[in-house]
Amino acid sequence: MVPRGAGSGLSGGATAAGSQLVVSTERLNRIIEVSPLDGVAVVEPGVINAELNSHLEPYGLFYAPDPASFEISSIGGNIATNAGGLRCAKYGVTRESVLALDVVLADGSLISVGHRSIKGVTGLDLTSLFVGSEGVLGIVVGATLRLHPIPVARKTLTAFFDSTAEGAEGLAAITLSPVRPAAVEFFDTPSLANIDEHSGTALRQRGAALILIEIDGYGIDEQAADLSSALALAGARVTTETEAEAIRFWELRRHGRGLPHGHWFIGEDIAVPKSQLLKVYEAFPSLEERFGVEVSAVSHAGDGNLHPLLTQEIGSGGDPAHPPASLRDAATELVRIALALGGTVTGEHGVGTIKRDWAALELSSRSLQAQRAIKASLDPNQLLNPGKAF
Amino acid sequence: MVPRGAGSGLSGGATAAGSQLVVSTERLNRIIEVSPLDGVAVVEPGVINAELNSHLEPYGLFYAPDPASFEISSIGGNIATNAGGLRCAKYGVTRESVLALDVVLADGSLISVGHRSIKGVTGLDLTSLFVGSEGVLGIVVGATLRLHPIPVARKTLTAFFDSTAEGAEGLAAITLSPVRPAAVEFFDTPSLANIDEHSGTALRQRGAALILIEIDGYGIDEQAADLSSALALAGARVTTETEAEAIRFWELRRHGRGLPHGHWFIGEDIAVPKSQLLKVYEAFPSLEERFGVEVSAVSHAGDGNLHPLLTQEIGSGGDPAHPPASLRDAATELVRIALALGGTVTGEHGVGTIKRDWAALELSSRSLQAQRAIKASLDPNQLLNPGKAF
Repeated sequence: MVPRGAGSGLSGGATAAGSQLVVSTERLNRIIEVSPLDGVAVVEPGVINAELNSHLEPYGLFYAPDPASFEISSIGGNIATNAGGLRCAKYGVTRESVLALDVVLADGSLISVGHRSIKGVTGLDLTSLFVGSEGVLGIVVGATLRLHPIPVARKTLTAFFDSTAEGAEGLAAITLSPVRPAAVEFFDTPSLANIDEHSGTALRQRGAALILIEIDGYGIDEQAADLSSALALAGARVTTETEAEAIRFWELRRHGRGLPHGHWFIGEDIAVPKSQLLKVYEAFPSLEERFGVEVSAVSHAGDGNLHPLLTQEIGSGGDPAHPPASLRDAATELVRIALALGGTVTGEHGVGTIKRDWAALELSSRSLQAQRAIKASLDPNQLLNPGKAF
Repeated sequence: MVPRGAGSGLSGGATAAGSQLVVSTERLNRIIEVSPLDGVAVVEPGVINAELNSHLEPYGLFYAPDPASFEISSIGGNIATNAGGLRCAKYGVTRESVLALDVVLADGSLISVGHRSIKGVTGLDLTSLFVGSEGVLGIVVGATLRLHPIPVARKTLTAFFDSTAEGAEGLAAITLSPVRPAAVEFFDTPSLANIDEHSGTALRQRGAALILIEIDGYGIDEQAADLSSALALAGARVTTETEAEAIRFWELRRHGRGLPHGHWFIGEDIAVPKSQLLKVYEAFPSLEERFGVEVSAVSHAGDGNLHPLLTQEIGSGGDPAHPPASLRDAATELVRIALALGGTVTGEHGVGTIKRDWAALELSSRSLQAQRAIKASLDPNQLLNPGKAF
């Protein structure tokens, strides 16, 4: 049985192979309740992330996890992958917004786990265990989600630097300041060039690297001032953008890049301790040289999560459907670099089928054995999402 | 094998019975590393919560979980119980501050789980599973903790009301405002009277119920103004306290109450959806009448976690060491009331040995069975902390 939400996952966690049964949660799409007094919403798993937030807006509340797929991905899928997004450094990942779950286990029984209160420690934390478990332990059929008040103010700052390295170093100024932005996105030189080419902008005229920041909440001008001076000291040209420019920048962040024509590509999802981001970017040139690929990355820098894009020109006689081993090898090497820096194979997309080999590089055999034992304890006949996650 | 930290737990989770071996983490008390650039600290489990925060202060950082026992409880014990505290409504419980763990399993093997980055979804979330597992799945020997910058400003507000009911109703004004205080503590009439008697204050002259609030971060004056007007509309007399008064109020919160002389007592730890707090307080008079006890409560109101104090006069011929069944029966009835309101047996203290009967009221038999299966998968010979948690 392969649980499937909106099918927007990037790691193959919701895809079925021969003689497997897909269990779709698509029509479990009701928002059951919004309780402003408890600060929660109760929803079915098929509700689309963006639809939930549209529904919440009149209440002055929002659901924080905002994966880039928020317009098309379902809450159930977000829970299955412990989805991240842009706002995680301040508001946490999906796990921090899931208070309780209704889950159908492999034997068909329905259990309710977790609490409608923020606190609650009766028994093992099965709620957190189901979040991010990629459908291998049970199928989520209901969720109680924690909501936040919509901030009283929001502002967007841009900080342009003269090189990728200076920009990546400049991130430390944010970490060391007392400001906790809602989002901190880092663009290296080729990512800015890509946007300029694809979207007709002229970002490269403003610099060779960009930190795009959203701050929110009380004292917004004071926050902007503190962050601006910290970033200026780190060598940035900082601008508090107008509302129209802010909308444009976030739109460029989400949809501004294009895939280069006539290239194979792999999109990656590694994460590293945030002080190590620079070292990952520094590794790109040698990867390019060694494997004959091109590498660039936009990062959720506030939590050390990079999305490298590896491309290789198809060339004459190449088959678009069959990328060469060198591309995958370059991606594997990048994963090894992330692991050597204390990082992880996947920050927010999940292992699915695509990253199982890489997961085996990260998890020790004893840790894998513990995970399989837990899986077997809840699904002894291996009925749920076989061949996924680990 | 009974894992034991500082031994400050309130539910008996770290106490051993005959022929059990206590494994103390007391001397694993080193702070291994503080990394301001990653925003983490790496510690051994025997480090005392308050000592960690003293150590972090020069870095401008703090570790958020602040159980009332912070001066004497260990990080390992905090992790074992998923400890809460006063600041959880804004900064989360212990689970939200634990990024990675080193754990010794029942077979003696050591595994590392989790990530030094905020994001990371490779495999099942064993880190979250170990947090709050009360030592039944493994023994934590190392922890990577998430840190926060010390806020640029802090202020304390008091909101006095004319009755417990008006005060409990007034809490909604905070929930519905865009301000997220660091702490929201609610005192009913008998709790204020207790403090006055024990600490020589005159709080009852200011009102019959108190919401004690700490706000922090940017825009502190604007936060104070918004919250004050919202609370005033709800009927409160609101004061922004001086720094000296603020220190005094938080000291009274932590140590201001006394146990009534010549009484048996039980301290409770229920939590309910925060909109239901008033209903719990409304149930106290009938409990008092039915069981011949006295009931009052101070609450972490921001997350619906009450600490009711049930007392009964010992009287002549009574044995201080043997409280009557009526006292425990009253506590059980209070637990049933919390569960009927959608709440939980224990918000932050853990089940230990003391609350196992109550946990069985909360968890369905299928859920208990799932928990025991997971326990058996990691500790098939039931070596770790037998008879605890569930």
